[in-house]
Amino acid sequence: MKTRAAVAFEPKKPLEIVEVDLEGPKAGEVLVEIMATGICHTDAYTLDGFDSEGIFPSILGHEGAGLVREVGAGVTSVKPGDHVIPLYTPECRQCKSCLSRKTNLCTHIRATQGKGLMPDGTSRFSYKGQTIFHYMGCSTFSNFTVLPEIAVAKIREDAPFDTSCYIGCGVTTGVGSVIFSAKVEPGANCVVFGLGGIGLNVIQGLRMVGADKIVGVDINPSKEEWGRRFGMTHFVNPKDVGDIVAHLVNLTGGGADYSFDCTGNTTVMRQALECCHRGWGTSIIIGVAEAGKEISTRPFQLVTGRVWKGSAFGGARGRTDVPKIVDWYMEKKIEIDPMITHRMPLEKINDAFDLMHRGQSIRSVVVY
Amino acid sequence: MKTRAAVAFEPKKPLEIVEVDLEGPKAGEVLVEIMATGICHTDAYTLDGFDSEGIFPSILGHEGAGLVREVGAGVTSVKPGDHVIPLYTPECRQCKSCLSRKTNLCTHIRATQGKGLMPDGTSRFSYKGQTIFHYMGCSTFSNFTVLPEIAVAKIREDAPFDTSCYIGCGVTTGVGSVIFSAKVEPGANCVVFGLGGIGLNVIQGLRMVGADKIVGVDINPSKEEWGRRFGMTHFVNPKDVGDIVAHLVNLTGGGADYSFDCTGNTTVMRQALECCHRGWGTSIIIGVAEAGKEISTRPFQLVTGRVWKGSAFGGARGRTDVPKIVDWYMEKKIEIDPMITHRMPLEKINDAFDLMHRGQSIRSVVVY
Repeated sequence: MKTRAAVAFEPKKPLEIVEVDLEGPKAGEVLVEIMATGICHTDAYTLDGFDSEGIFPSILGHEGAGLVREVGAGVTSVKPGDHVIPLYTPECRQCKSCLSRKTNLCTHIRATQGKGLMPDGTSRFSYKGQTIFHYMGCSTFSNFTVLPEIAVAKIREDAPFDTSCYIGCGVTTGVGSVIFSAKVEPGANCVVFGLGGIGLNVIQGLRMVGADKIVGVDINPSKEEWGRRFGMTHFVNPKDVGDIVAHLVNLTGGGADYSFDCTGNTTVMRQALECCHRGWGTSIIIGVAEAGKEISTRPFQLVTGRVWKGSAFGGARGRTDVPKIVDWYMEKKIEIDPMITHRMPLEKINDAFDLMHRGQSIRSVVVY
Repeated sequence: MKTRAAVAFEPKKPLEIVEVDLEGPKAGEVLVEIMATGICHTDAYTLDGFDSEGIFPSILGHEGAGLVREVGAGVTSVKPGDHVIPLYTPECRQCKSCLSRKTNLCTHIRATQGKGLMPDGTSRFSYKGQTIFHYMGCSTFSNFTVLPEIAVAKIREDAPFDTSCYIGCGVTTGVGSVIFSAKVEPGANCVVFGLGGIGLNVIQGLRMVGADKIVGVDINPSKEEWGRRFGMTHFVNPKDVGDIVAHLVNLTGGGADYSFDCTGNTTVMRQALECCHRGWGTSIIIGVAEAGKEISTRPFQLVTGRVWKGSAFGGARGRTDVPKIVDWYMEKKIEIDPMITHRMPLEKINDAFDLMHRGQSIRSVVVY
């Protein structure tokens, strides 16, 4: 079949909207009509050429929502008409990772996904006979895409596509890091570094679980209003204080029970660890750092009880937890609508990257 | 009263055995007759002048066992004749840390203890009218010492002093890190870096909880026999393999579920983290690093699920958990006797430091 898609033919160039060829689903695969997709920093990171493992030409996009249109042989968990969110972190429920009960990082199709291919080692996309590669196993910048069955989460049918698509990455990454990775308990004092889309979702995750102090940290004063909108109780601009770590330890009455780095800056990651409470404070790294950058601290920070960990896709299991987060959204336990600052047709997708680079959007969504 | 003690008058000099003056216990304090004390690397670290916060003149020693001889006003939890282990990590059961249920690092008397003083801000020791400072709140290199009530663990009376004193530091630090800090589950694959006294106690802790692979790593091949004696299943000498991290990941079938650094070397601490299993592997820093040294890694190691943490006094609560560890020893769940390689009178205590510096002892014990 043919489908309209925004193709990244090479790095550092605008996406091109063209008709590509799409093979139907093979065994264990599903054809999904993407109804809406968010544009995430990770798409820009790859498009801008920063990801040394980026593959071109490819169809980017990994934050979508849509409808199952066709299923391949042996598919039993979804059927045509089902509403789904594509999963860049699949959930096979059979690999060592899924069965460990300790991680969401399913490894079942990791090798092929990393090469831009379906599990059988081939691509479903082509353009004028040339292979176009998949991206993060999703490629939601195409109106139709093919996904492994284990990489779609079936969600309720009353959830709007143009907001619930954000659950495919940003919402789950932020809210999930609070609930599944950190397991924050009610009454905890928390610090969130970086109030972009991820940071705001961490903040509303903290509000949802009943955190006490929710301290937001950002060098951009205009973020304060955004933070407070989603539950932030205190705002700190590092430019306004001397020693940011000492300031935060004091503000939280001895240190954060949990801190979250949503900046990707390794210097900030260290501050996030060191502002944690002696004895138990846990710091979660969510942000993706520049290639080659390293985190450092004195081991004494850990020996005296601080814990340094990270979170990918919010620690959420794709097929099990993503539908729950959609429920939380529909039940108004979390908000998404005010975070969707821009909507546009696929033809305008390059505008979304411009808005992001200029810091003028929380989340832009392409509606097909 | 007078008591015989080994005094550290100044750093980098041998201890001097003299009669010092000891004031009796004030309110909330107990007088303990030390019957045996281990000599630990931390004593040597301070005596050798590496601890920038070391205070002189002082009476070192923090790994003792003895008898309560007198109690001050208001003391209710112990009485004369009770067998006790002094605690450099006290347990007040009332401070924020004790009540957090998340840490063993009681802060009740931390400020004065760090200054070599009792909680009222004075010392009980003096020599020819000059104040002699307490050390780690214990000063077990004195035949009699005074301790806060919250800094003694009452233990069973059939436990021999000359072996159970080791539970005052080394045994608890190693075994506790497995049980209280890492909470290792049966069947786990584990790697232990550094097979000194702490490493051997980590190994026997892993054996006690039913770990599967217990891999010991040391550059000294003579440590293999010691490791196997306490439950080590595999030995790796980094000098014999190329990439130690890759070798350990392969040996553990994908990475360690838990790793333990017992070396104090920050390069080794990084290897200990990076040999952990993607998704959940947890690395525990036990070793004390040189002043100023830092640990580093790529944040990707944490984002993909590894956890970096530390352990002090094995995560054990002094008054609650130390008596349990004495029980485990008496029930033969763990061993201590073969680790006590040397016994000597107080007059020979400087020999214990020499043996340690030459790597010729696992644990030397002074028997009063």
